[in-house]
Amino acid sequence: MRVLHSITSMQKISKEFQRQGKIIGFVPTMGYFHQGHLSLMLQARKDTDKVVVSIFVNPIQFGPKEDFKRYPRDLKRDLKMVKDIGVDIVFCPKEEEMYPEGYKTYVRVKELEDRLCGRFRPGHFQGVCTVVLKLFNIVMPHIAYFGQKDAQQAIIIKRMVKDLNIPVKIKVMPIVRESDGLAMSSRNTYLNKKEREDAVILYRGLQLAKELVKSGINDSAYIIERVKKFILPKITKIDYIEIVDYKNLLPLKKIEKEGLLALAVWIGKTRLIDNIILRNKKNI
Amino acid sequence: MRVLHSITSMQKISKEFQRQGKIIGFVPTMGYFHQGHLSLMLQARKDTDKVVVSIFVNPIQFGPKEDFKRYPRDLKRDLKMVKDIGVDIVFCPKEEEMYPEGYKTYVRVKELEDRLCGRFRPGHFQGVCTVVLKLFNIVMPHIAYFGQKDAQQAIIIKRMVKDLNIPVKIKVMPIVRESDGLAMSSRNTYLNKKEREDAVILYRGLQLAKELVKSGINDSAYIIERVKKFILPKITKIDYIEIVDYKNLLPLKKIEKEGLLALAVWIGKTRLIDNIILRNKKNI
Repeated sequence: MRVLHSITSMQKISKEFQRQGKIIGFVPTMGYFHQGHLSLMLQARKDTDKVVVSIFVNPIQFGPKEDFKRYPRDLKRDLKMVKDIGVDIVFCPKEEEMYPEGYKTYVRVKELEDRLCGRFRPGHFQGVCTVVLKLFNIVMPHIAYFGQKDAQQAIIIKRMVKDLNIPVKIKVMPIVRESDGLAMSSRNTYLNKKEREDAVILYRGLQLAKELVKSGINDSAYIIERVKKFILPKITKIDYIEIVDYKNLLPLKKIEKEGLLALAVWIGKTRLIDNIILRNKKNI
Repeated sequence: MRVLHSITSMQKISKEFQRQGKIIGFVPTMGYFHQGHLSLMLQARKDTDKVVVSIFVNPIQFGPKEDFKRYPRDLKRDLKMVKDIGVDIVFCPKEEEMYPEGYKTYVRVKELEDRLCGRFRPGHFQGVCTVVLKLFNIVMPHIAYFGQKDAQQAIIIKRMVKDLNIPVKIKVMPIVRESDGLAMSSRNTYLNKKEREDAVILYRGLQLAKELVKSGINDSAYIIERVKKFILPKITKIDYIEIVDYKNLLPLKKIEKEGLLALAVWIGKTRLIDNIILRNKKNI
């Protein structure tokens, strides 16, 4: 496993892999790995010849009041966690090289970027799209792996790849959860013991929604109201709970076939997201 | 010479070229070729193994009141003009395939996009950047060729390529002019006989600026004023005449070493652009 810091050397090696006809699998991350990240790497290991993992806490996807500075970083820990997984290259570019003085170029996926999390994190998805496109140009992967936990991110990246004719296949892997159901996230480290216990309510809320749909209810407003009431006692604030169309992220009045229930809530000073795909089996 | 219309087949062939280790040269155009276009293709022919030329009148770089509909198109004429140049592939994608329903992704180079022509053509450079990035992803060139006539475009594309780490080298080739000095442009076909004669004033205005600098004058405001007075009798309207820094496109008060004199003016209902790099040889 090699650790690279320079864009030029990463690009050089990627070109060499290409010349050798190797299939490159790529897992872009912000580091501070958990099992969710590892599941993406393991899938890449299965699918491809060379697995590249990037670690870069991307400043331009954080708002001015967000947690860029305190986002957990621990390269040593991360390298140790992946050393037996079969990662070929860990790419950790420097901020000054990714965004040198005079940097001016940004990629946007209109409309999708404004929905769900976009309403609360203006500029976030522009930052995500821009860094992912940069990383794609540097790593030149054949397949790139994203987690379903960031459902909106995955949908936006897929749209960007399709729209810009980027020759990369996107694979979205299932949410990995703690034993009590909490979706794994590097931000879970922000939670104190009480908050961590309370946080399980999100998963239980999603399960409640699933049960409601299973019982034949397909009215989104009703389901959302029930989930809201159910989770409110344990959380500090709701940014949103929505049931949306999986492609365009627009609210669904009724779950005809399937809908994405996505939520973002605060527990103390920590913002958590989670989601579930609700399937109305009568109509599938 | 093959003519391709489908994105998938173009991308397939590009991948095949890559596998064969061929160097791909790419000339993106809106068609209706003139010697300026041909000069780019000839340079590509010299530099690379496979020359790909795209013809696509890109709707998203035209404003709602601009000349998208009447922009000259004649594929037969274009193919005839390039048949002996050594072009390997002419790629003419369809609008419905480039921008299918639900298309949402756009690339911007902030600040640079607002200057010079950007002030008069809002959204233009976003349209240019987006289509060029798409074409790069489809054609996968090693070197791409642009004309100096569209100086701002060349500067913006270079910035985008650098910022997004796109593995393409950009070559900018000199302006090709008619025998009387008028910069070649597909839009010159809009000019009637009288307008065509008047249009030579632009080149003469640029030459006047060059002479002034040669004579030791380096005050931009003075040079611009002289050029303005000189060309005004023959033209309908000035969008701008500016002397700017070649990198950031910001106005230069004095030409210390070099400056880009760029102008956009209307002759009748035709908007023409031209430019010259002014060099203060005392300081170079």
